[in-house]
Amino acid sequence: MASVPASLTLHPDRLLPSDPAVRPLARRLYEGVRDLPIVSPHGHVDPQMLLDDAPFADPTALLVQPDHYVTRLLHAGGIALDRLGVGAGPMGEERARAAWRLLCANWHLLRGTPVRFWLEAELADIFGVTQRPGADTADAVYDRIADCLRQDSHRPRALLERFGIEFLATTDDPADSLDAHAALAADPTVTTRIVPTFRPDRYLEPERPGWADAVRHLGAVADTDAGHYGGYLEALERRRRHFLAHGAVSTDHGHADAVAEPLDRAEAEGIYARALAGEASAAEATAFRRHMMVEMARMSCADGLVMTLHPGVFRNHHPATLDRFGADTGHDIPVATEYTRALRPLLERYGTEPGFHLVLFTVDPDVYAREVAPLAGFYPAVYAGAPWWFLDNPAAIRSFQSSVTEIAGFSRLAGFVDDTRAFCSIPARHDMSRRLDAGFLAGLVAEHRLDEDEAAETLAGLVSQQPRKVFKL
Amino acid sequence: MASVPASLTLHPDRLLPSDPAVRPLARRLYEGVRDLPIVSPHGHVDPQMLLDDAPFADPTALLVQPDHYVTRLLHAGGIALDRLGVGAGPMGEERARAAWRLLCANWHLLRGTPVRFWLEAELADIFGVTQRPGADTADAVYDRIADCLRQDSHRPRALLERFGIEFLATTDDPADSLDAHAALAADPTVTTRIVPTFRPDRYLEPERPGWADAVRHLGAVADTDAGHYGGYLEALERRRRHFLAHGAVSTDHGHADAVAEPLDRAEAEGIYARALAGEASAAEATAFRRHMMVEMARMSCADGLVMTLHPGVFRNHHPATLDRFGADTGHDIPVATEYTRALRPLLERYGTEPGFHLVLFTVDPDVYAREVAPLAGFYPAVYAGAPWWFLDNPAAIRSFQSSVTEIAGFSRLAGFVDDTRAFCSIPARHDMSRRLDAGFLAGLVAEHRLDEDEAAETLAGLVSQQPRKVFKL
Amino acid sequence: MASVPASLTLHPDRLLPSDPAVRPLARRLYEGVRDLPIVSPHGHVDPQMLLDDAPFADPTALLVQPDHYVTRLLHAGGIALDRLGVGAGPMGEERARAAWRLLCANWHLLRGTPVRFWLEAELADIFGVTQRPGADTADAVYDRIADCLRQDSHRPRALLERFGIEFLATTDDPADSLDAHAALAADPTVTTRIVPTFRPDRYLEPERPGWADAVRHLGAVADTDAGHYGGYLEALERRRRHFLAHGAVSTDHGHADAVAEPLDRAEAEGIYARALAGEASAAEATAFRRHMMVEMARMSCADGLVMTLHPGVFRNHHPATLDRFGADTGHDIPVATEYTRALRPLLERYGTEPGFHLVLFTVDPDVYAREVAPLAGFYPAVYAGAPWWFLDNPAAIRSFQSSVTEIAGFSRLAGFVDDTRAFCSIPARHDMSRRLDAGFLAGLVAEHRLDEDEAAETLAGLVSQQPRKVFKL
Repeated sequence: MASVPASLTLHPDRLLPSDPAVRPLARRLYEGVRDLPIVSPHGHVDPQMLLDDAPFADPTALLVQPDHYVTRLLHAGGIALDRLGVGAGPMGEERARAAWRLLCANWHLLRGTPVRFWLEAELADIFGVTQRPGADTADAVYDRIADCLRQDSHRPRALLERFGIEFLATTDDPADSLDAHAALAADPTVTTRIVPTFRPDRYLEPERPGWADAVRHLGAVADTDAGHYGGYLEALERRRRHFLAHGAVSTDHGHADAVAEPLDRAEAEGIYARALAGEASAAEATAFRRHMMVEMARMSCADGLVMTLHPGVFRNHHPATLDRFGADTGHDIPVATEYTRALRPLLERYGTEPGFHLVLFTVDPDVYAREVAPLAGFYPAVYAGAPWWFLDNPAAIRSFQSSVTEIAGFSRLAGFVDDTRAFCSIPARHDMSRRLDAGFLAGLVAEHRLDEDEAAETLAGLVSQQPRKVFKL
Repeated sequence: MASVPASLTLHPDRLLPSDPAVRPLARRLYEGVRDLPIVSPHGHVDPQMLLDDAPFADPTALLVQPDHYVTRLLHAGGIALDRLGVGAGPMGEERARAAWRLLCANWHLLRGTPVRFWLEAELADIFGVTQRPGADTADAVYDRIADCLRQDSHRPRALLERFGIEFLATTDDPADSLDAHAALAADPTVTTRIVPTFRPDRYLEPERPGWADAVRHLGAVADTDAGHYGGYLEALERRRRHFLAHGAVSTDHGHADAVAEPLDRAEAEGIYARALAGEASAAEATAFRRHMMVEMARMSCADGLVMTLHPGVFRNHHPATLDRFGADTGHDIPVATEYTRALRPLLERYGTEPGFHLVLFTVDPDVYAREVAPLAGFYPAVYAGAPWWFLDNPAAIRSFQSSVTEIAGFSRLAGFVDDTRAFCSIPARHDMSRRLDAGFLAGLVAEHRLDEDEAAETLAGLVSQQPRKVFKL
Repeated sequence: MASVPASLTLHPDRLLPSDPAVRPLARRLYEGVRDLPIVSPHGHVDPQMLLDDAPFADPTALLVQPDHYVTRLLHAGGIALDRLGVGAGPMGEERARAAWRLLCANWHLLRGTPVRFWLEAELADIFGVTQRPGADTADAVYDRIADCLRQDSHRPRALLERFGIEFLATTDDPADSLDAHAALAADPTVTTRIVPTFRPDRYLEPERPGWADAVRHLGAVADTDAGHYGGYLEALERRRRHFLAHGAVSTDHGHADAVAEPLDRAEAEGIYARALAGEASAAEATAFRRHMMVEMARMSCADGLVMTLHPGVFRNHHPATLDRFGADTGHDIPVATEYTRALRPLLERYGTEPGFHLVLFTVDPDVYAREVAPLAGFYPAVYAGAPWWFLDNPAAIRSFQSSVTEIAGFSRLAGFVDDTRAFCSIPARHDMSRRLDAGFLAGLVAEHRLDEDEAAETLAGLVSQQPRKVFKL
């Protein structure tokens, strides 16, 4: 609305509590962790991108197209996804610039969201943008970023280095050769430890289209016969070992619910056989998947991979968008999710198993205080995962901080995960987390619930030691 | 307890955040919208009252009897509803004064509630009361208000004018002639735009007593034969056109749940026929109502009426009170309500339909962050309705503000609705909303998440432009 | 981490809001109630301990072994329960000291939790500890406490006196003779009013092992024949009278859900008979228990005992821990709990019955705003119980304060209950509550929603008058 373009500056105190009795404390605490290396134990960076190290195509391809956080907000504001290049490859200069102009002209749609915070930090810190994005500044900002992207300083590996990422876990298919990971690990110029994560969802859900082919293929990759249940389990175990050999530290599971309920062997075998033949009922397929959660925990106890759960998302809520633009395009919507009863059979077996780590994420914020924190406050195996997706914003994070720590303490938190497909947002996301953690701990000090030395130690723990311990780095 | 009556004064900073780093900002922002005209797109003012413009009978008839917010709190405190004139007509001076004394003597029961805030604002701003209500001041306050009510300055239309209400939607039965609305629209001295709202609940729920007679009557009013399903649909469509012709901008729906699930035509016809014959099962009646939600959305896509949903209230929880005092007497109680799965069939069809607006209200606060905001953050049709009933208080509003905007931004909010039967509370309710919005936005500025110019623009948008856009005024 | 042991000091402003516009107000309000006598209408102190008045064995037996709040956090941190003496008798000096060292060395596990606040207050206020617990100070702290415990000043009755406990309700089995209570009541040196609470859970749940023997025994104790349903009801009524005769003011009920649904007499008789014969189905047993909730309400209307509900806990989540260490060992986990529909049949009958008081507790924090507050804001019988277990921490209490009072006002709160098995934590728990209430009310004053005289009166009401009124003391 202003006719003179407003400036874009990052205030050093942003996101720190405004309360004058808290802010100076928060600032001191934050300073102590601001520059610590980033540990990213869960995310969606493409290892091939890091291996190739090719320049990013353009600002839109880097910051808009792959980021469903951005595109869903623009879509809600009435902008069709095809105009933003969602699900498409490189758009070419003209369409990429047009998409960028849409983002800037609708910058107000991001007000109040963490997306705004992340993008501002990216524009200012990575690309040196000094003008607030808007219709009048869109081209100038585009040109500035595009200019950066042509420099070696802004190629993927240079950014990885600049971001100070010490550890980076990707998310990978169990049938993946992990060749990209092997090549990165073999390259002495890559100082970040980059490891795969075993994400077997599609092999554990017989109701998914293509499941039978997928498990047969997995068997082939693992050199076992997945034509029967025993071979299928063997294939999973072998692929886990393959992942372990490539540095993996965890498995990740994102199903419709959190239920882990074992079947007896004969039942599991029977359903598996019927599912392969395309004859399993929907109820049987669900029972099988829930059974496999217990199996995954059993395998984790054996091979040491940390098990992380991300349940409770209704995927692809809008079929027409799925058909046209593919998955992960902004219309996955949370549902209420139960944990206490759901996880009992698993925890009955493995909840006190030495060395077993189970990190519980949720998109149902009610569950943190009611179920996740009480579980993490008793079972040595259970850790509360950081607020994730839809909850990765200041309000939800603050609610999480107080409600979980007052029940389970700080030691039961798994630390921050950025979980992002937007490579450049990684430092901004970790920075947001550090600011919010500093602010929360400063509040405890200001209320005389914690001494400042304890707060500083706790904050460093959340940023550094805790994720290393929980993810066994 | 004090023997000298305490004074009643409205502090200019009331409800603004106490944090000294936020309050001055909040005050500035609030000043910018304090005197903007009121847009009230959903409420329960009786148009006949405005047409008649008769003086209000007495303080109790105006401020106590019709306001279940007030009477339920007194009832919980042990005061029988008949002593308050609930569900009764004018009580006469003696009983009205006795009821008023009960309110004042029990003024402490309202502490901490928004009802207290509203009533104080009404007493001070509209009636010039300067003493805190109490047993010792009850008569003086009563007399002061009664005296005002005898003046022309305090008749309904004069108040309407004084309140600065630019737009006022009432809530009306689809069979209503809307003659009162027509007369008000034809009166050049009425400067407020007063429009009806199409509220068809009772015609969509075959399980309600009297449903068959009601739909037959609706058919007669619409000059169609509602003896079969096609005629019933035609009757609804015609009455919507009748409402549109009288300025209506929206339809409103308040059922037990949010489910919208289509039946195929033959099923719908069959259930309709059986329901007319009194032979539909409870499950069929529910299925029919859920089907009709999809039909209402279809009709909205065709005729442009905004669709608003207010589900999740268990109506008339205490049968003895219902029998004696009627509905809307303080014992409607919220229940947990699901939206993600419930609305999918509707949104699959119409969620990206240009021009379709669906405003989601809830009395289940958990749903805002988990379901409503994610839906509004993707579907261009979906807007998050303001916290409503039981949630129309500062704590719930503040929670709504942060949890919804951090997921969906400000642009997906439908703006404030007062939803009140208490005519005099309208300005106080809008004022509360403006104060809380100003305070919330000031907090974002104080944390350097938004520039002050953006906050001011966003606040004006919430108060003025946003409801106009969402409700198509 | 510090090599010089840090000090332990209790800041006078701890837990008061840090906001400089609120803290001075909060301090003034708190000062007004800090030293008021403690009213404890629900808890788990053993009356025999008070009768015997024997010195406590050692610091671990007093502060660690019986307190599942402490032991579950240590267990989650990897310390086996047997090392802490859970479920065991006196451990002897060596093992007790070893357990104490574990607590101190893991003191950081308590950061951010209310357990830390309580223990600090206990150590400093009751035992004069001045060093922060840690590996290096464990023995000194142990010795200091052990030394105190050898003094008469730290025997149970001396502490009871020192704590300023005016009223103390214990929790008792309906078959209990209540001899300990009778002896305490007869002792003129005991100035605290100590009364039993009627806790009949095990007699109302036919699915529990040993139920048939238990009800037969209850019949014998009551001198009736519980071999049939009528005699069983008579036994319960007689035992309630026995409790009343010993000063009881309430009954307490902690079942898996909140459902109260009556059966007709013949059904109830039939299930009772089948259950005695070991032939009732699980569904019948549940139906019977839900029926008995209505019966308990009926009896409360007749005899005046206040009825309190504590539903929604999944008991003994980890079977191996139950088998080895017994119940109440830290693995009871909350589940989502419904109240609106569940309690309707009970409230339909007794919700407006004069003199009937029903206090609703919950471990599902979502229920406060959505269901408990709306129910308490209409039914004169219903009061909102204080945040309890898992929710007895500052964040949950603050959320409860705002969400419940803004819907139902302060007058519908039942006041604080400490509900503790940790005798020495009683004053610290009440102090936490007073600080948080003072802070909350100060915030209302700072936002000009309440005058300071009203806030002071309301706070005194919450601490003193309200629990006396609700629990009919």
